[in-house]
Amino acid sequence: MAPRPTPADKFSFGLWTVGWQARDPFGDATRPPLDAVEAVHRLADLGAYGITFHDDDLIPFEADAAVRDAHLTRFRRALDETGLVVPMVTTNLFTHPVFKDGGFTSNDRDVRRYALRKALRAVDLAAQLGARTFVLWGGREGAEYDVAKDVRAALDRYREAVDLLCQYVVAQGYELRFAIEPKPNEPRGDILLPTVGHALAFIATLARPELVGLNPEVGHEQMAGLNVAHGIAQALWQGKLFHLDLNGQRGVKYDQDLVFGHGDLLNAFALVDLLENGGPGGGPAYDGPRHFDYKPSRTEDRTGVWASAEANMRTYLLLKERAAVFRADPEVTAALATSRVGELATPTLAPGETHAGLRADRTAFEEYDVTAAGARGYHFVRLNQLAVEHLLGAR
Amino acid sequence: MAPRPTPADKFSFGLWTVGWQARDPFGDATRPPLDAVEAVHRLADLGAYGITFHDDDLIPFEADAAVRDAHLTRFRRALDETGLVVPMVTTNLFTHPVFKDGGFTSNDRDVRRYALRKALRAVDLAAQLGARTFVLWGGREGAEYDVAKDVRAALDRYREAVDLLCQYVVAQGYELRFAIEPKPNEPRGDILLPTVGHALAFIATLARPELVGLNPEVGHEQMAGLNVAHGIAQALWQGKLFHLDLNGQRGVKYDQDLVFGHGDLLNAFALVDLLENGGPGGGPAYDGPRHFDYKPSRTEDRTGVWASAEANMRTYLLLKERAAVFRADPEVTAALATSRVGELATPTLAPGETHAGLRADRTAFEEYDVTAAGARGYHFVRLNQLAVEHLLGAR
Amino acid sequence: MAPRPTPADKFSFGLWTVGWQARDPFGDATRPPLDAVEAVHRLADLGAYGITFHDDDLIPFEADAAVRDAHLTRFRRALDETGLVVPMVTTNLFTHPVFKDGGFTSNDRDVRRYALRKALRAVDLAAQLGARTFVLWGGREGAEYDVAKDVRAALDRYREAVDLLCQYVVAQGYELRFAIEPKPNEPRGDILLPTVGHALAFIATLARPELVGLNPEVGHEQMAGLNVAHGIAQALWQGKLFHLDLNGQRGVKYDQDLVFGHGDLLNAFALVDLLENGGPGGGPAYDGPRHFDYKPSRTEDRTGVWASAEANMRTYLLLKERAAVFRADPEVTAALATSRVGELATPTLAPGETHAGLRADRTAFEEYDVTAAGARGYHFVRLNQLAVEHLLGAR
Amino acid sequence: MAPRPTPADKFSFGLWTVGWQARDPFGDATRPPLDAVEAVHRLADLGAYGITFHDDDLIPFEADAAVRDAHLTRFRRALDETGLVVPMVTTNLFTHPVFKDGGFTSNDRDVRRYALRKALRAVDLAAQLGARTFVLWGGREGAEYDVAKDVRAALDRYREAVDLLCQYVVAQGYELRFAIEPKPNEPRGDILLPTVGHALAFIATLARPELVGLNPEVGHEQMAGLNVAHGIAQALWQGKLFHLDLNGQRGVKYDQDLVFGHGDLLNAFALVDLLENGGPGGGPAYDGPRHFDYKPSRTEDRTGVWASAEANMRTYLLLKERAAVFRADPEVTAALATSRVGELATPTLAPGETHAGLRADRTAFEEYDVTAAGARGYHFVRLNQLAVEHLLGAR
Repeated sequence: MAPRPTPADKFSFGLWTVGWQARDPFGDATRPPLDAVEAVHRLADLGAYGITFHDDDLIPFEADAAVRDAHLTRFRRALDETGLVVPMVTTNLFTHPVFKDGGFTSNDRDVRRYALRKALRAVDLAAQLGARTFVLWGGREGAEYDVAKDVRAALDRYREAVDLLCQYVVAQGYELRFAIEPKPNEPRGDILLPTVGHALAFIATLARPELVGLNPEVGHEQMAGLNVAHGIAQALWQGKLFHLDLNGQRGVKYDQDLVFGHGDLLNAFALVDLLENGGPGGGPAYDGPRHFDYKPSRTEDRTGVWASAEANMRTYLLLKERAAVFRADPEVTAALATSRVGELATPTLAPGETHAGLRADRTAFEEYDVTAAGARGYHFVRLNQLAVEHLLGAR
Repeated sequence: MAPRPTPADKFSFGLWTVGWQARDPFGDATRPPLDAVEAVHRLADLGAYGITFHDDDLIPFEADAAVRDAHLTRFRRALDETGLVVPMVTTNLFTHPVFKDGGFTSNDRDVRRYALRKALRAVDLAAQLGARTFVLWGGREGAEYDVAKDVRAALDRYREAVDLLCQYVVAQGYELRFAIEPKPNEPRGDILLPTVGHALAFIATLARPELVGLNPEVGHEQMAGLNVAHGIAQALWQGKLFHLDLNGQRGVKYDQDLVFGHGDLLNAFALVDLLENGGPGGGPAYDGPRHFDYKPSRTEDRTGVWASAEANMRTYLLLKERAAVFRADPEVTAALATSRVGELATPTLAPGETHAGLRADRTAFEEYDVTAAGARGYHFVRLNQLAVEHLLGAR
Repeated sequence: MAPRPTPADKFSFGLWTVGWQARDPFGDATRPPLDAVEAVHRLADLGAYGITFHDDDLIPFEADAAVRDAHLTRFRRALDETGLVVPMVTTNLFTHPVFKDGGFTSNDRDVRRYALRKALRAVDLAAQLGARTFVLWGGREGAEYDVAKDVRAALDRYREAVDLLCQYVVAQGYELRFAIEPKPNEPRGDILLPTVGHALAFIATLARPELVGLNPEVGHEQMAGLNVAHGIAQALWQGKLFHLDLNGQRGVKYDQDLVFGHGDLLNAFALVDLLENGGPGGGPAYDGPRHFDYKPSRTEDRTGVWASAEANMRTYLLLKERAAVFRADPEVTAALATSRVGELATPTLAPGETHAGLRADRTAFEEYDVTAAGARGYHFVRLNQLAVEHLLGAR
Repeated sequence: MAPRPTPADKFSFGLWTVGWQARDPFGDATRPPLDAVEAVHRLADLGAYGITFHDDDLIPFEADAAVRDAHLTRFRRALDETGLVVPMVTTNLFTHPVFKDGGFTSNDRDVRRYALRKALRAVDLAAQLGARTFVLWGGREGAEYDVAKDVRAALDRYREAVDLLCQYVVAQGYELRFAIEPKPNEPRGDILLPTVGHALAFIATLARPELVGLNPEVGHEQMAGLNVAHGIAQALWQGKLFHLDLNGQRGVKYDQDLVFGHGDLLNAFALVDLLENGGPGGGPAYDGPRHFDYKPSRTEDRTGVWASAEANMRTYLLLKERAAVFRADPEVTAALATSRVGELATPTLAPGETHAGLRADRTAFEEYDVTAAGARGYHFVRLNQLAVEHLLGAR
């Protein structure tokens, strides 16, 4: 039986996920709008602890102050009634036609200024609701045509924008950090900062890199054929896993946003093991929200929407259980040792050894038997088979 | 007519490219070995300026000192006779079975020590031959199975290795910089530092980041469906384009290593325009070797090998010509202006403006006509069509 | 200079292409609706000869008879005024929520019956307007979840539907053939009949296979990483290239629908050479409409829309010119001979030879020098380089 | 616990799988050759029922009659000792340089004749050993360059070759059928008959289509991003699943040949459910060998090789168990009904109904409430979640 989620599991959902009306490039909406207050109550009932949103999900684009306040008041009341928190807020710089060539990196400077203003307002909103993370998904920051976008100038503008946002939260005294969400393509032909790697590299160039981290999304890395557990491990290694988006994707194709685990299940298992147990190397790894950014399929009605929300959490918890049993199995411990997985934590150099010492060590090279070493097996397939069998609940 | 290459064009080739015997996963070699001396002479005849190699391309694996010296003496004589230079050297940490789980990040510490020793020797060789760049392609640093590799420990070991190499070149006073070559997969299921972005991010964590840059390969980025001109632009933007590998790839599949331009021709045009003219934003961009890392197809005999070497250079020079004419065309200048491509170089903030100033500017938000701005066209398709027609030599 | 298109070039456009309002999964429409009458006039001005449409592009979904007639009358008048023809009509079985699990293969039998009725009505409309081809794009015929669709039952229903449509056109005496348009995915996770091959195979099972062929789309095959010129060659080989959709796609990702030639330019050249000259083997190949199924990018306004329509035709005509010069070049003729391209047209068996004869021919096996034959080069790279240089207008 | 395989499970392995020496495009062999006799004994010990091979796996290329006989005699003795059968044999038309441009479709007619002779000899060998299936993998039948291969002529030659083979088995009275194995690319840039669909379509053009079917390989379809369970369902639907190759692949990349289930596990579950239970529609589906065509990873020694062979069978049996329990679960039965999965087996037309009847049925169109129908949910996500939970052994 799948365990029941509780707020201690730190599951959160985007308002735009359960609220997606299921309009796609070839089809009209199949579901009516979902009231944010209803979303809060239903998610709380299902055991979630948090809800997140884009500014425009909660408050209609260009709403006046009165409308804004009314929406906020109702929403806060629902939060109070349920105990749900808002761990993350983000801004929508992609839906309105004004952003068709991007927000922070549009070729049109006026659009860039407008985008910055919109982002600053959303930052205020995030702070107001107690969010600790502000996600930046630059889905429109990109190009279809290589000659139409000066990528280096675009990165200059991107940096200018993120630097400004950082200055602002510092000036306002907000306890808010930014998390960049990479994506390789769609809706633009090529999106800037297309992978976890590119975004990490970009952050290193910022004025206040400590305020900026990542919000990797499972499906986005997989759309580039990359191993998302590897990417998230590198983000963790660089201290930059500020938030994350869990969902499912079946290979290199359009952005599917399936339920977590309904894509590459083995890789999802590895990811949960990394988040919960620190992966093959062990140790605690991530204690932020387990945030689902998925879309209930267009074939689902409202009942199906809530079933899909539940499915995300159930799968996560089942994978967590499987990972715990896997880690506790002595046969796995032995197999890890046989495969020398733990040996990778030992530095290659001896304590205090330098290149001179290494070069003087004849056992490392001149007397090393490469033929024998090359013939030795690592027994990785057996180790992986143990993982598969644990995943299948067969051990 | 295609212009003839000269050494001023700075074309270089890997010895392993023209020397490839065309063994593939499903087939035996179709060509006899190529003597390095012959390679030097033929490349010089064709107008190249440089030749590069892995240690084991030139000197057989585990050769003794006498054999090593004999190979080196012959090779140097050929360089002297032809004037060819050696701009780059690299080490082979992937062919021998001992490296089957990687070199610097093998689970087996003894293998890691051996790999470091081999790399240090190749660094000596590089310095000895006057190379300025030492490429690190970690093709075996990776995994097929998520449970068999502790990615964070692997990155620790990778960093340890590169830090040691940097210390060594500093200690020896070598004028040598390192260039990491990313690749997403093949021969490992997932390779560490899979893209330009991941490698750039990694470099920022090193003890001496100034000594380490990138050697991006056209086909490697394209194997992840990424825009290689974008990736190289980001590398340039971060001051890290130390070297590069030009070749051709037809989409997301196995590593094809076709002739440059025999893959995605439009993207190759954008790349040459970036390298030669600084891309859409203009300005000089890269003045290192134009290095070809390709494989003459298995269907080719020796004559076909040299024809393929020539084809790389001819295509590059043709694209360079087309890019120059494209940039000089007043219709293109006008189209770039209409598409506001240059406007992206203007900072979004006014000189001295802060968030306070921006927030006070009502024209930027409260009075901004988003509807009108959203309706304005960017005319990118026409600009791209101009590029296509210039590429086709039709303007 | 690019040649000007004329009706003799047989260029046609979908009404939904120039009429696309540029709503995408992450953004609202950026362009107002386009009147069908204006589309007819503008396309005629640009040199097109035909316009095509889905039933609902021309006549609003569920319009009553009066509305329908009014639309038709205006449209026919525009056709008469311009001389534009309607070579192809199709039906929209994907936009309305009722089709969310498909039309002909929905799990819901009532939906299937409704879809068939809608298709029959569109067939009447096609006949009424003199179309000779009726395209079937089953974009919603598919699934996201393997357990939710009985693929064999779905293929039974698909066949039942197409068989019924064939019976109907025969019964009505319509001069209309059907053309199935394959696509691997999007908007469904996996679409039935995902490639040219699967659709060809399906057609062989129909009651009246002679009435059904293919409408391959450049980008759709490329979304599966397949060579579209190869796929279309197989369709031609099986006598099934009834119609086609020209556009551009940059690799394995979401469906981009770029301008023809703005994707893989080398493959576009091969395709035009196949359509115009019969490809490497020569001979006439396809004389149907050169139909563009593309989307003017979301960044374009109305002016950009027409520039993009023009760009499709200009690129096609330029590639046609390049292909003609390529075929006429004696150096190419010689290179084709060296590469033995024409030799493939010679049967492997001698006239009248059977397996007995072949087995008796010792020169074919026992006395065949495989080593010498294996060493012989095919010189394909040089031949391809000639193609690249012709494409670049450099010969 | 994973069940133990027995011959009744009909598991078979290619001799080239466990015998793979692990040479890859970037690395030398890591394992010594495996004697065929040892392979037979070990596979029998592990519970397999069959072994398959390419002619050259068993008998060295160009061996004389005495050598051939010696190999055959030893091999047959091992078969007799173990009871292992040879359900399938195939021919290697890809390793030797003579086949570098293909076998049946090489541009060189002499090569084609040689290939046919080699294939005929292998057919004799297959018959001699009692095989019922002869697989044709045309891995070299393809091209890197569009201008270098006349695809239509190539298909003519392919058909000529397969027709000849069919005539031969009929003339010899062999009880042998042919099974074409599609693959999209690697080792050629584009391979002819790249998917299940293309091969099915090709078969329909043959002189004796009844003698020719398919040998789909899991990873090959997945290399094109296609759903292999869908492809195999279409092959079954067309009566053409003559044999199959089970293995694992992690997305669109080079051919990985992992252990079955070590790739896309959810899709593997769907495939086993299809093979064992007929998939969502039920009914028996395939009773041929469950043949594994995988490669033990290069990191494995001989012990790891046998562990990997075992892993293939264990995973298959576990998935078979999970599928049986899934099908027996009343909650699943109810969910399938809710999702109307079975309803797809009901013809869309009533018994005897024609287009006239359908057009007269006002409830099908004029009176059909599309809005209500469009609002109805299919509850596919819940059904898929049941599958995931069964797969995880959590129900």
